[in-house]
Amino acid sequence: MKTNAGRFFEDYRVGDVITHAVPRTVKMGERALYHALYPARHALYSSDIFAQDCGLPFSPLDDLIAFHVVFGKTVPDVSLNAVANLGYAEGRWLRPVWPGDTLRSESTVIGVKENSNGQSGVVYVRSVGLNQHGEAVLEYVRWVMVRKRDFASAAPVAVVPELVKVVEPGALVIPQDLDFTRYNFALAGEPHRMRDYAVGEVIDHVDGITIEEAEHMMATRLWQNTAKVHFDATQRADGKRLIYGGHVISLARALSFNGLANAQMLVALNAGAHANPCFAGDTVRAWSQVLDKAETAAPGVGAIRLRLVATKGAAGALRGADGKYLPEVLLDLDYWALMPL
Amino acid sequence: MKTNAGRFFEDYRVGDVITHAVPRTVKMGERALYHALYPARHALYSSDIFAQDCGLPFSPLDDLIAFHVVFGKTVPDVSLNAVANLGYAEGRWLRPVWPGDTLRSESTVIGVKENSNGQSGVVYVRSVGLNQHGEAVLEYVRWVMVRKRDFASAAPVAVVPELVKVVEPGALVIPQDLDFTRYNFALAGEPHRMRDYAVGEVIDHVDGITIEEAEHMMATRLWQNTAKVHFDATQRADGKRLIYGGHVISLARALSFNGLANAQMLVALNAGAHANPCFAGDTVRAWSQVLDKAETAAPGVGAIRLRLVATKGAAGALRGADGKYLPEVLLDLDYWALMPL
Amino acid sequence: MKTNAGRFFEDYRVGDVITHAVPRTVKMGERALYHALYPARHALYSSDIFAQDCGLPFSPLDDLIAFHVVFGKTVPDVSLNAVANLGYAEGRWLRPVWPGDTLRSESTVIGVKENSNGQSGVVYVRSVGLNQHGEAVLEYVRWVMVRKRDFASAAPVAVVPELVKVVEPGALVIPQDLDFTRYNFALAGEPHRMRDYAVGEVIDHVDGITIEEAEHMMATRLWQNTAKVHFDATQRADGKRLIYGGHVISLARALSFNGLANAQMLVALNAGAHANPCFAGDTVRAWSQVLDKAETAAPGVGAIRLRLVATKGAAGALRGADGKYLPEVLLDLDYWALMPL
Repeated sequence: MKTNAGRFFEDYRVGDVITHAVPRTVKMGERALYHALYPARHALYSSDIFAQDCGLPFSPLDDLIAFHVVFGKTVPDVSLNAVANLGYAEGRWLRPVWPGDTLRSESTVIGVKENSNGQSGVVYVRSVGLNQHGEAVLEYVRWVMVRKRDFASAAPVAVVPELVKVVEPGALVIPQDLDFTRYNFALAGEPHRMRDYAVGEVIDHVDGITIEEAEHMMATRLWQNTAKVHFDATQRADGKRLIYGGHVISLARALSFNGLANAQMLVALNAGAHANPCFAGDTVRAWSQVLDKAETAAPGVGAIRLRLVATKGAAGALRGADGKYLPEVLLDLDYWALMPL
Repeated sequence: MKTNAGRFFEDYRVGDVITHAVPRTVKMGERALYHALYPARHALYSSDIFAQDCGLPFSPLDDLIAFHVVFGKTVPDVSLNAVANLGYAEGRWLRPVWPGDTLRSESTVIGVKENSNGQSGVVYVRSVGLNQHGEAVLEYVRWVMVRKRDFASAAPVAVVPELVKVVEPGALVIPQDLDFTRYNFALAGEPHRMRDYAVGEVIDHVDGITIEEAEHMMATRLWQNTAKVHFDATQRADGKRLIYGGHVISLARALSFNGLANAQMLVALNAGAHANPCFAGDTVRAWSQVLDKAETAAPGVGAIRLRLVATKGAAGALRGADGKYLPEVLLDLDYWALMPL
Repeated sequence: MKTNAGRFFEDYRVGDVITHAVPRTVKMGERALYHALYPARHALYSSDIFAQDCGLPFSPLDDLIAFHVVFGKTVPDVSLNAVANLGYAEGRWLRPVWPGDTLRSESTVIGVKENSNGQSGVVYVRSVGLNQHGEAVLEYVRWVMVRKRDFASAAPVAVVPELVKVVEPGALVIPQDLDFTRYNFALAGEPHRMRDYAVGEVIDHVDGITIEEAEHMMATRLWQNTAKVHFDATQRADGKRLIYGGHVISLARALSFNGLANAQMLVALNAGAHANPCFAGDTVRAWSQVLDKAETAAPGVGAIRLRLVATKGAAGALRGADGKYLPEVLLDLDYWALMPL
């Protein structure tokens, strides 16, 4: 067999380092496609001039492009046989990705725990994206449920990593030379600075996007994510293609411009759940809640912690009386972004 | 409310200058997408070498990319609550947009007139697109019908701008150094020069394109046009997404290559009407009529004034016995283009 | 008539050289779109760094981008009135296409043979793609069946060119400075080098892609291929749009990564048949068979000759008992690729 059948639960050992294949040079073509696939409008990622007015050499690629490219490379080694993508933690963007950078990914297995049914287990990996200089641009922990190859095989010693619930504000990495003291709110699109947002405040982002098959497949291929269920209509009994969860993250983040236009740069991913599957024809909406605020060392730059929720149908409550996500909730994401003070 | 609810009729006062948000750096990625979304083949916008043989430093971005980017930025401030996009006038392309340019838009309110029903009014704006040097690349007048917030509010003094029906040939701005004396007709795709076209001549552009939802949404997002009706299938009772009128303009212009391959550069938009709505599944065709011809000061460069009509179904008559556009007419555009003499 | 009605059989004479219209500058935007439309993952075309480690100045555009651009230009002159695309032979990639190159195409008529029905004939052309320096980047022979304009016209003297069945290994052109001695198999995605493949070996590429209308139309437009049947749902009685055969070639080649990740560069197209039409909704799969292997003069670089078969539905047999392609076979391609020894 020369083709990749993917790894099973038994194939992961704590401490293993996996070099993921197919490095990728990303340029402005990827940005143009990103902005065609998502209604992305944050000015720092749209205009070189705006980015320069914020102290950067020019406009970096959208932070979620970095995330998707790094994530996509891990799929053949981490989640090809995954039953479920269970969570994210300790995600940090460590430096901007510039057009022309070449990204590759590595993952370290940091935990394994067999499920009580003996048929699958949970694998924890810490993945890092590296640029052509070997510098880390992004890191995050992800855990997935993976099937066992042989149900009769012995369970490994369970190792469950201790993960922080929220990245500490002091651990956020602010891009070099970032400066919001000359920030142009008119060009950014909204007047609200960090002090205008109250912890607990909820923002309904109003707009909705009805998803087409061609769009989510183009996006997912662009990130070189190879999971069959996104592309092959014969993989599910109902003939539906499951939409890559990251597509929903990017849609929701782009929709959040309307009300959070100044939450410019993503710096940490504290947690994330893909609450329910998303399919073509769904109309995705989003709302956010302000969870926390913090100062940073960079001039004029604050950090705002946000819950970003994507729904199909009307935005509303998050969980039912049983504590479970309501069926119309697609995504529940907890992240830090940088915003003018 | 931190989200943008859009402006209502009462929010426009003659003389107001609106700085539109989210400047955008456009590069070759936008061009690649433009050429994937529309069957664009005009050689000056396809080949750096062809453009250099016409005296330009390299191939500019398609003139309608400039139009869409500049237009898209005006949507959140001008047409989010528009009931109808009523017309265009006095449009002129003032200098090419080069890959790497950063565009932003400004609009000046030049007219307001409340409708007799007291529920809406017409707003006239002159919009200008500016590059990173503050140079104007495009200007045009647009008027839209906008709902009133409060039907009981008093009508403003009516101001209706006087607009020229057609941009004078002497007012056309020819790109610097443009020279068609060494024009390669074989590479351009057709042998017809301006003297081969007669005023009154009609050209059926033959080809048709059946539109898909994913295509028009990708295009419209690429221009950062945020109007809900283009993206959200729940906005209309019939579950259809209304296609951005500019998408039809670009389709028709690209289809017009077949018969007008040498109408290379757009220099003026005299008038335009989106006669009927367009939806996914429609097969768009186009025909043109030569309205006028003029010389220019540039070597070998003539100006040809064209009516460009897009239809769904068969191309045919424009208006019925009642003087109204026939239901299969989508677009009626009046523009000047540059063509070898 | 100013529009192009296409050529008929009588319009081709052996020895004619046709300059095809609309040269095109291709850059990284085209690559980004290529990688969004096809699950392309060959590392040499994904990463500048990987390409540099193989001796190249940076990553070239995918070889099939070159093929599609060159082919697309020939359509208005060669296949607009074609009844069928009958075959390819003697195809060779002669030098890489770099981002920023400007491509144009020329074809020489090398054969004509009227069919016995007197209503159509076969036309053989040798097409060559040239870059901005006038250097050939690709050449191939294609033959198509074209309708006669006038069934009563006399048949020309039949000229059928002698074409080699397979490009000789010695005739393969290896890109300058290509060197696989420091090839990184981990980053390329698979450990298999040429010696690991046996002649006769069959590789099932496992994955499938369900095609959407928007995708194949965007791809086909990007190559400026103007054949109506790909875009206009009213052209066929069944309302289907016929998918450009090259779209299936690119899909199959990209799918073949899984099992042939190290078959990096295409250097020859020996033969090709579009066995059955492909339509949106089809799920395309692919399998390959190793036909031959050869050494090259470049360090560490071998040549592997592969049959690449695309199918809809399950991959299986190629031909029925009657010797004809089975209805689920879409493509049968015979090519040479370069692989580490």
